[in-house]
Amino acid sequence: MMTKRIGTQTIKFQSPPSIISRASIVGPKEGQGPLKDYFDEILTDDYVGEKSWELAESKIFEKAVDLALKKVNLKPSDINYLFGGDLLNQIISSSFAARSMQIPFFGLYGACSTMAEALSLAAMMIDGGFADYTIAATSSHFSSAERQFRYPLELGNQRTPTSQWTVTGAGATILSKYGNGPYITYVTTGKVVDLGIKDANNMGAAMAPAAADTIINHFRDTGFSPTDYDLVVTGDLGRVGSDLLYEILAREGFDIKDIHMDCGLEIFDESQDIQAGGSGCGCSAVVLNGYLLSEMSKGLFNRIFFMATGALLSTTSTQQGESIPCIAHGVVIERFLN
Amino acid sequence: MMTKRIGTQTIKFQSPPSIISRASIVGPKEGQGPLKDYFDEILTDDYVGEKSWELAESKIFEKAVDLALKKVNLKPSDINYLFGGDLLNQIISSSFAARSMQIPFFGLYGACSTMAEALSLAAMMIDGGFADYTIAATSSHFSSAERQFRYPLELGNQRTPTSQWTVTGAGATILSKYGNGPYITYVTTGKVVDLGIKDANNMGAAMAPAAADTIINHFRDTGFSPTDYDLVVTGDLGRVGSDLLYEILAREGFDIKDIHMDCGLEIFDESQDIQAGGSGCGCSAVVLNGYLLSEMSKGLFNRIFFMATGALLSTTSTQQGESIPCIAHGVVIERFLN
Repeated sequence: MMTKRIGTQTIKFQSPPSIISRASIVGPKEGQGPLKDYFDEILTDDYVGEKSWELAESKIFEKAVDLALKKVNLKPSDINYLFGGDLLNQIISSSFAARSMQIPFFGLYGACSTMAEALSLAAMMIDGGFADYTIAATSSHFSSAERQFRYPLELGNQRTPTSQWTVTGAGATILSKYGNGPYITYVTTGKVVDLGIKDANNMGAAMAPAAADTIINHFRDTGFSPTDYDLVVTGDLGRVGSDLLYEILAREGFDIKDIHMDCGLEIFDESQDIQAGGSGCGCSAVVLNGYLLSEMSKGLFNRIFFMATGALLSTTSTQQGESIPCIAHGVVIERFLN
Repeated sequence: MMTKRIGTQTIKFQSPPSIISRASIVGPKEGQGPLKDYFDEILTDDYVGEKSWELAESKIFEKAVDLALKKVNLKPSDINYLFGGDLLNQIISSSFAARSMQIPFFGLYGACSTMAEALSLAAMMIDGGFADYTIAATSSHFSSAERQFRYPLELGNQRTPTSQWTVTGAGATILSKYGNGPYITYVTTGKVVDLGIKDANNMGAAMAPAAADTIINHFRDTGFSPTDYDLVVTGDLGRVGSDLLYEILAREGFDIKDIHMDCGLEIFDESQDIQAGGSGCGCSAVVLNGYLLSEMSKGLFNRIFFMATGALLSTTSTQQGESIPCIAHGVVIERFLN
């Protein structure tokens, strides 16, 4: 078999899988943001009738997968693999959701990079001949994340200007070897990058170097440049991280400013008091499955590089004074095949 | 391309990847157990010179990967993907280790099933044409796991008879498209199974149904039976879980008792006061990379089904009264290709 590898971190698919269905569910606050018309469902209650935020998060993960399946009349048993993950310790949102679906399950942890990690592997399974249908799905929940990573909500802590707001939401994407696009055509897999940022309230700064590393390697591996894309999407660098990303890329001779979109900066507007932007696995997942793929189907974008970045810290590592290792994974999504 | 799928949960490789290198590092207690002569390194200090058990665990993950690379004169830059995970929140052992290696990294969470999950994906990357060399690696550490999942060690809590002892250890396996075996020939991917066990000190009982589900589906998918294997290996069901596994399989007409080996039951002996057996991601990883592959190279086994089971709970889910979702992934390892 011919290798599909190009360069050091990138794969070019021989039989690019199609995105045949997608679903996005968001919380009440996200449902008041600028992208509200793009989401399949806006929750009115962020407990979704469950008795804890963790169970609520698992519920919306499950609902997003269910909805994506229903849209194309597929059953869980039609799906060969589910790739999923979330921010909670031991990814309980995903595992508990997978329990009710009975789809062979690969649990992932990539923090906020998980949607891109899941899409990468779900697409590779199809091009590799291992699957006809796969699902990539992730979730996050403001309240379950906040109390796990930061403070009890009841404490009413002030938030720093660099902090980001974890999105309550879940997104699911179904890939298939059959279909007419949009297609996943390339995968660039990230390395762990850590330039020594230790402030867990400044994830954007910690993640920007990882994002830059993956973008630069993507361009080097493929020979593409920013002008080959309608959009370079990052997951949740926020305001601080996006500015740093431009700075690092400029030093390497790349300018993506005009075609860059950060999901964390689009999902809320400034009046919503979210400091440096949205974040969480669910952020890029709902913006991809809500806004981006919807506008791509209408022709606003034909070719995007969708990348999500993750800050791979834990409360233990932070308490031990460690810096924050980060990673960014990216996939190219194209409306048409050349 | 012809599909490689057989049945509902199993893949048969067209170009089975070879295991070309392996390494295992264990803690002092594991180094006094019956398998002590099979491990590459036995730590004399379970801090490995680090200032916390979490950093120590990350260190042995890194050392295991390094050692596996050195044995075959490969550099990190020769490796296309590292698949790794561990038990700690946000898999910090793996992520912090991956930081120093600069290999494109897919972070996984499958609890104690992680070694089999990582081997599955690492093998699929090669057969799928995405990689020439991949590494699967996992770790666990008694002291980091105990204080995260149970009680501060300083408390000196009594352990229940059904509880298991988390192995301090790390294992790494290098797979390649080049090589002369042993080969990974089949992958059977698990579904999440939960029969309602809520006792976090009885993981064996919780995991047995998931193990049974994957074994039964493996036999159904492939048409193989226990007599086709020299060994059916489970990760860490321990005494309680192994007996339950036999019981469930007997109901379905399968008897694996004579060819079953549980890594958790082999790594310690009863005099070591480990209650129902060893456990942790590192348990199956070091028994595979220490004992099993070593004896396979000498001809004691020619064909094994290596399966690892994971209990996908968190302390939060347990405190909320939830039962324990479990999963089991399996790969077939063969000394020769037919």
